[in-house]
Amino acid sequence: MISFESDYIAGAHPRLLRRLLETNLEPLSGYGSDPYCESARTKIRAACDAPEAEVIFLSGGTQTNALVISALLRPWQGVIAAETGHISTHEAGAIEHTGHKVLTLPQHLGKLDSGELERFVTGFYADGNHEHMVFPGMVYLSHPTEYGTLYSLSELESISRVCRANSMPLYLDGARLGYGLMSRETDVTLPDIARLCDAFYIGGTKVGALCGEAVVFPRRAPEHLLTTVKLHGALLAKGRLLGVQFDELFTDGLYFRISRHAIDCAEALKQILREKGCTFYLESPTNQQFLILDNAQLEALRREVAVSFWEKYDETHTVVRLATSWSTTQADLDRLREVLEAPPFLP
Amino acid sequence: MISFESDYIAGAHPRLLRRLLETNLEPLSGYGSDPYCESARTKIRAACDAPEAEVIFLSGGTQTNALVISALLRPWQGVIAAETGHISTHEAGAIEHTGHKVLTLPQHLGKLDSGELERFVTGFYADGNHEHMVFPGMVYLSHPTEYGTLYSLSELESISRVCRANSMPLYLDGARLGYGLMSRETDVTLPDIARLCDAFYIGGTKVGALCGEAVVFPRRAPEHLLTTVKLHGALLAKGRLLGVQFDELFTDGLYFRISRHAIDCAEALKQILREKGCTFYLESPTNQQFLILDNAQLEALRREVAVSFWEKYDETHTVVRLATSWSTTQADLDRLREVLEAPPFLP
Amino acid sequence: MISFESDYIAGAHPRLLRRLLETNLEPLSGYGSDPYCESARTKIRAACDAPEAEVIFLSGGTQTNALVISALLRPWQGVIAAETGHISTHEAGAIEHTGHKVLTLPQHLGKLDSGELERFVTGFYADGNHEHMVFPGMVYLSHPTEYGTLYSLSELESISRVCRANSMPLYLDGARLGYGLMSRETDVTLPDIARLCDAFYIGGTKVGALCGEAVVFPRRAPEHLLTTVKLHGALLAKGRLLGVQFDELFTDGLYFRISRHAIDCAEALKQILREKGCTFYLESPTNQQFLILDNAQLEALRREVAVSFWEKYDETHTVVRLATSWSTTQADLDRLREVLEAPPFLP
Amino acid sequence: MISFESDYIAGAHPRLLRRLLETNLEPLSGYGSDPYCESARTKIRAACDAPEAEVIFLSGGTQTNALVISALLRPWQGVIAAETGHISTHEAGAIEHTGHKVLTLPQHLGKLDSGELERFVTGFYADGNHEHMVFPGMVYLSHPTEYGTLYSLSELESISRVCRANSMPLYLDGARLGYGLMSRETDVTLPDIARLCDAFYIGGTKVGALCGEAVVFPRRAPEHLLTTVKLHGALLAKGRLLGVQFDELFTDGLYFRISRHAIDCAEALKQILREKGCTFYLESPTNQQFLILDNAQLEALRREVAVSFWEKYDETHTVVRLATSWSTTQADLDRLREVLEAPPFLP
Repeated sequence: MISFESDYIAGAHPRLLRRLLETNLEPLSGYGSDPYCESARTKIRAACDAPEAEVIFLSGGTQTNALVISALLRPWQGVIAAETGHISTHEAGAIEHTGHKVLTLPQHLGKLDSGELERFVTGFYADGNHEHMVFPGMVYLSHPTEYGTLYSLSELESISRVCRANSMPLYLDGARLGYGLMSRETDVTLPDIARLCDAFYIGGTKVGALCGEAVVFPRRAPEHLLTTVKLHGALLAKGRLLGVQFDELFTDGLYFRISRHAIDCAEALKQILREKGCTFYLESPTNQQFLILDNAQLEALRREVAVSFWEKYDETHTVVRLATSWSTTQADLDRLREVLEAPPFLP
Repeated sequence: MISFESDYIAGAHPRLLRRLLETNLEPLSGYGSDPYCESARTKIRAACDAPEAEVIFLSGGTQTNALVISALLRPWQGVIAAETGHISTHEAGAIEHTGHKVLTLPQHLGKLDSGELERFVTGFYADGNHEHMVFPGMVYLSHPTEYGTLYSLSELESISRVCRANSMPLYLDGARLGYGLMSRETDVTLPDIARLCDAFYIGGTKVGALCGEAVVFPRRAPEHLLTTVKLHGALLAKGRLLGVQFDELFTDGLYFRISRHAIDCAEALKQILREKGCTFYLESPTNQQFLILDNAQLEALRREVAVSFWEKYDETHTVVRLATSWSTTQADLDRLREVLEAPPFLP
Repeated sequence: MISFESDYIAGAHPRLLRRLLETNLEPLSGYGSDPYCESARTKIRAACDAPEAEVIFLSGGTQTNALVISALLRPWQGVIAAETGHISTHEAGAIEHTGHKVLTLPQHLGKLDSGELERFVTGFYADGNHEHMVFPGMVYLSHPTEYGTLYSLSELESISRVCRANSMPLYLDGARLGYGLMSRETDVTLPDIARLCDAFYIGGTKVGALCGEAVVFPRRAPEHLLTTVKLHGALLAKGRLLGVQFDELFTDGLYFRISRHAIDCAEALKQILREKGCTFYLESPTNQQFLILDNAQLEALRREVAVSFWEKYDETHTVVRLATSWSTTQADLDRLREVLEAPPFLP
Repeated sequence: MISFESDYIAGAHPRLLRRLLETNLEPLSGYGSDPYCESARTKIRAACDAPEAEVIFLSGGTQTNALVISALLRPWQGVIAAETGHISTHEAGAIEHTGHKVLTLPQHLGKLDSGELERFVTGFYADGNHEHMVFPGMVYLSHPTEYGTLYSLSELESISRVCRANSMPLYLDGARLGYGLMSRETDVTLPDIARLCDAFYIGGTKVGALCGEAVVFPRRAPEHLLTTVKLHGALLAKGRLLGVQFDELFTDGLYFRISRHAIDCAEALKQILREKGCTFYLESPTNQQFLILDNAQLEALRREVAVSFWEKYDETHTVVRLATSWSTTQADLDRLREVLEAPPFLP
C-alpha cells in the first residue's frame, strides 16, 4: 500500500532528525532563547531579504493563524478571506474563538480577486451603517491555496496595494510555501512575499519538519510577542525542537531543495494521471492534485493507494486529492502507474 | 418635517410612561426581583400559553442575541442564520465576540429555507472532515425578518422539525414580533412560536417601550441565567424599568393593539405609495416598507420626510425604508401624501 | 415598612421622568445621535472642565466596567484593583469574560495604596519571569469605594503619578460619584478627577436615573467607540433614554443637589445610629453606612426596615449596609429613629 | 559549565528519538489517528488502571491547562487554585484569555488545604450575593507543586471528597508527575490519581519527551474533544510526534525509570547541598530543590553552574531553583560538589 494521502504522512526529513539527535544532550535555555532558534532566525531573515524581520516559531498552522490574526486585529475588526480559505472552513472556528469574524469574499480557484477586495472595502466605508458592522481589519491569503493554486506576482502586488491603501495588514498562510516557491509556474519569490506582506509563515509541518511553522513579520511585529505566544498556550518549553529543525531547513537551501523534489514528483504524477486519462478537477501547479473519480474507481484505487476525500462532486463522482511531498519516492510513482494500468482503470 | 425613519423614533407608549411615574417612588428590590417583573412574567407566560416558561428582561436586541446564542451554544458550535440575518450583518460582530461563528445560508426574502437548512446539516455530518469544522449548534431566525417578511406557520414547523431532528435549539429574534403577529397576512400566533422555538424574544424597544426585550425559554432555560446576564453586563440594577413596561404592555392586550395600529398605518402607507406609483423593493406584510427611489427623488423627499437608507440599488437608485410604529399618526400619513403629490414626485 | 436597602430602590428623580414625558413624542434619531445626548455631553464636559472629553452613555456599571477595561487593555494586560473592588468580587467574572485578569492588591478601607501599587509594578518588571505573567495594563479605582470611603486628592494624585510613570491608564468607577463629590469630607472635585484619570464614569443608576452611566474619556478616547459599544451589546436604539436623563441631571446642578441631599440624610442617619449606640463597621463619609448588628437585633430590625446583608462578622453578628439616596425622606429617618427607640433595640 | 537550570534543558530521552527515527518513513494518518497514538493510549489506560479513560496528547502545559479548564467549565464558573498555582502566576493569563477567573486560595508549601477549600465553597453558597459572583466550577492542583512538594494520598482523598460533594471536577496538573510518583516520600500512585481526579495530565515535556503531555479523563471526557483541540489551535497534523514518544515512555516502565533516576540525582544533590551548608528554602521530596543564596555567592555560582532565579528573598539574598531530570549525570553532581568546595563557597 502506498500513500498520496497528504504531505504530512511521513515524519521529518532525515537531516532534521539527525540534527535533533546531534544536539540532543546540549543543555539549552528554553522558550526560544537557544542559539539554534537564533541561528534559524538569522537564516530566515537572509532568505527573506528582510534584515529587520521578527521571526517566531509555532507548532502548527491553525495555532499560527489564530495567534497572528488576533494579534493584528483590534476588537472591532475582522479578517477578510476567500470563502474557501482554511480559516473560513477547516479550523473549527479557531478565529471566531478569538472573538473575530471571518469576512468571506468569493474564491476564484481558491484565490481572492484584488478588484473584488477593493470594491468590498470601498463599499464598506460607503455604507451608511458601517459603524454597526465588522470593520475589515486585515486580509488573509493562502499561498499555495487550499486548491494548490498560486497568486502571480502581479496579483499579490495588486492585493498588497489595496491593503496598504486601506491600512489593512496583509497576512499570507504559507503552510505549503516551499511547494509554491518551487513551482515551475510561479514568478513569486520569498523576498517578494516579505516585501508585499505584513506577516506570513513559512510552513514546516508540511515541508519536512516534525512540526513547526516560522512566522515572519518583515517590518514591524506586534508588541510583546513572547507573552502573546504564552497566553495562546503556544510557547514550547523546548524551543529547540523548532529552532533546530528550521535551522537545518534553511541550511544549504534544504527547504527549497526538498520542495523542488515534491514539485518534480507532482509533475511526474500529473503526467501519469494524464496518460491514464484521469479527469483533473482543476489545474494545480503545486504538490496537491485534485481528480474527479467515479466512485467505483475510487473504491478500487483505495485498495492500493491512500488518497484524500476532498468533496462530493455529484451522485456518482468524488473529488479526491493526491499530494506529493519531500518524502515521495520514485517507487511510489511507479506503483501508482501500475495500479492505474490494471483493471478497473484500464480494461 | 415628519419621520418614517424607523420604529424607534419616539419614546415609549404613554401608558408605559404613566406606569413608570405611578410606581416611581415605591421602594423595590433590584435585579428583576420586584413584583412588576414577576407580574410581567406571569402575563407573558399566559400570552405564550407556556406556563413553564422562563422569562427574563434585557435592554436591547444585540445584547439579547449575543447572550442567548452564547448561552445555548457549546464552544465547538456555531449558529446558523440567513446571510441577511441581523446577527450576520449589523451587530458589529457581537456573536463572534462571544467566540462563535455565524454559519450563513442563502436568504429568500430574508428567510431561511427549511430544505436548504436540512441539506446543510446533513451535508455537514456526511463530510469526512466535519470534526475540523464548526458544528451547527442552533438556528437563528428573525420574524419579521430584516426585510419585513414573515414565515408562514408551515415554514416555521418545517424548520422546527429539522432543528429537533438534529438537536439544534431554534431561536427566534422577535425585535418586531408584535408587528409580525398583527400582520394581516400571518397565520402564526405567539403560542405557535412558543411551541416551535426553544428560545425567542418579544421585542419591546421597537414596539412601544423605552427599551427592553422579553426573552422567553418556553420549556427549559439555560442554567444560572441571572449570573449569565450579570457576566454579560446586561443586568439592570433597577429591573423595574423593564418589568413595569412589559407588565403594562401585556395588560389588556396593549402590545397587540399598538402593533395592530402600526400595521394599519403600514397598510395605509402602502396604499398611498402604490397610488403615487412608487416602486416597492419587495412585498412586506409588516410595518417596514422598502422602496426603490431615484436618487434625485430621494434627495427631494428627505427635505420633508425622514426615511432610512437601506442599500444602494444601482448607480442612480437607492433602496430606502419607511417604517410605521405605534407612534405613527394619521397626520404623518396625510403629510406624506401631500409631499408625494407635489413636484418632483408628481409633475 | 421603610427601606434603606440600597440607593437604587426608587425609580428616577421626578424631574427626569418629567423630561422623558415632555420629549416623548419628538421623533429622534437613534444610537446616541439625538440632540439630548449631545446637550448632555456638552454639559458634562463643562462640569468636568474637560472641553475635549469624549462622553458616551451606557446602561449599567458592570457593562461599563467590562467595556471600558477591555477597550483600554491589550490582550496581554490585566487590570489592577483592590481585592474588594467591585470588578474583583461582584461582577460575576465580567472582566475575565472579556479575556483579562484582575490583578488584586490589598485593600485599605476599600482603597488601593499608591506605595503598594508602585512596588507591585516595579516588582513586576524586576521579575525575571515577567514575560510569562500578566502585564499590569491599567488601574481600577472605585470612588466612593464599595465601603463608602473616599480617596483624598493627594491619594488620587499619587496613584495618578504612578500610573503615568508606568503608562497605565487610570480608570475610576464612579457608580456613586455624586455622593463622593458632595461628601462633607472630600477635597476632590469633578475637574480633579478629569485631570487625574484617563477614563471614569459618572454614575446615574444610583444617583437619580432610571438607568445610565456617563463614561468620560477626558483627553483621548479609544478608537471606534460606537462600534465597540455595539459589539458589547451595549448600544441602545433609543439613546434618548440616557441622553434626556443626563441632560436633566446636569441642568442647574441637579446631580450635585440630589447627591447633597443624600449626604445630608446620611449624616442625619449616622447621628441617629450613634445616639442609639450602634456599632459602625467603619467610618464612611458618604451615603453608605455599615453597622455590626447582633443577629437577633438584625432579625427584629428587618421586620420594620429593609437593609442589606453585607457580610458575616462572626457567629453571632452580621455586617449590614444602610444606604441613603436622593429619594430618602425625613419620614424615613424619623421612622428609623422610632424603631430604634423600641425594644429590642432600647429596653 | 553544567546546568541545573530546569528539567527541560536537554532534548528527549534517546530511546524516544530512536523510535522517532525508526518510524520516520512509515506513512501514517494525521491528527492522532495513527497506531502509535492508539498504542500509547492503551498503555496509559493500563498504567492508570482506568480502562475507560479517554486519552489525548497535547504539546505543552499551558496549552493543556487552558484547554482542559475551559472544556470543563461553563461560562459562569471559575477554577479554584492555590495562589502559587502555575495557572495563577506564570501562564500569562491564558486561563482568563478563555474567559474564566482563577479563584485563588492560600497556599501551604504550594498546596491547597482541603478544609480551606471546603469552607470557601460552603461560604460561597451561603453568601446572599453569590449569584453576582464567579461560581467555583472546578479545582486545579499541581502535583508536584511549583515548589516540588507533594500531596499525600489522604490529602488528595480529602480534596476529591470536597470536589465530589460540590460537583466540582478535580483536575491535576502533572507537568512533573513522574518525579512525584517516584519520590521516596509519596504514597500516591497513578491509579490513585485516576481514581480521585476527573482529569489530569502526565507530563512529557519535563520528563523525557521533546514535547508533549498526555491528558487523561479517567471516566468521562468532554464532548467533541478533537474539535475542541482543533479550535484551540492545539491539534498537531503529525500526531505521531506525540504518539511515538508516549508509546515509548510507557514501554517497559521507561517513564517511571527515568523519573526515578531524577529522584536519585535529586537526593544526591540534596546530600551535597546539605554537606556544604546550603540553606534550603523549603523541603522538597522531588526533583526541584530551592535554596536561599547570598547574592554574591549566587553570582559566583552562576559562573560555573546554571540555576534558575526563583524569587527575591530579601535585599541580599535570592531564592534559586536547581532541578535534576532524566538527563542529569553523575558528572554533573561531581562537578557541582567541586564548585561548592572552592571559594567563595568554602573558604
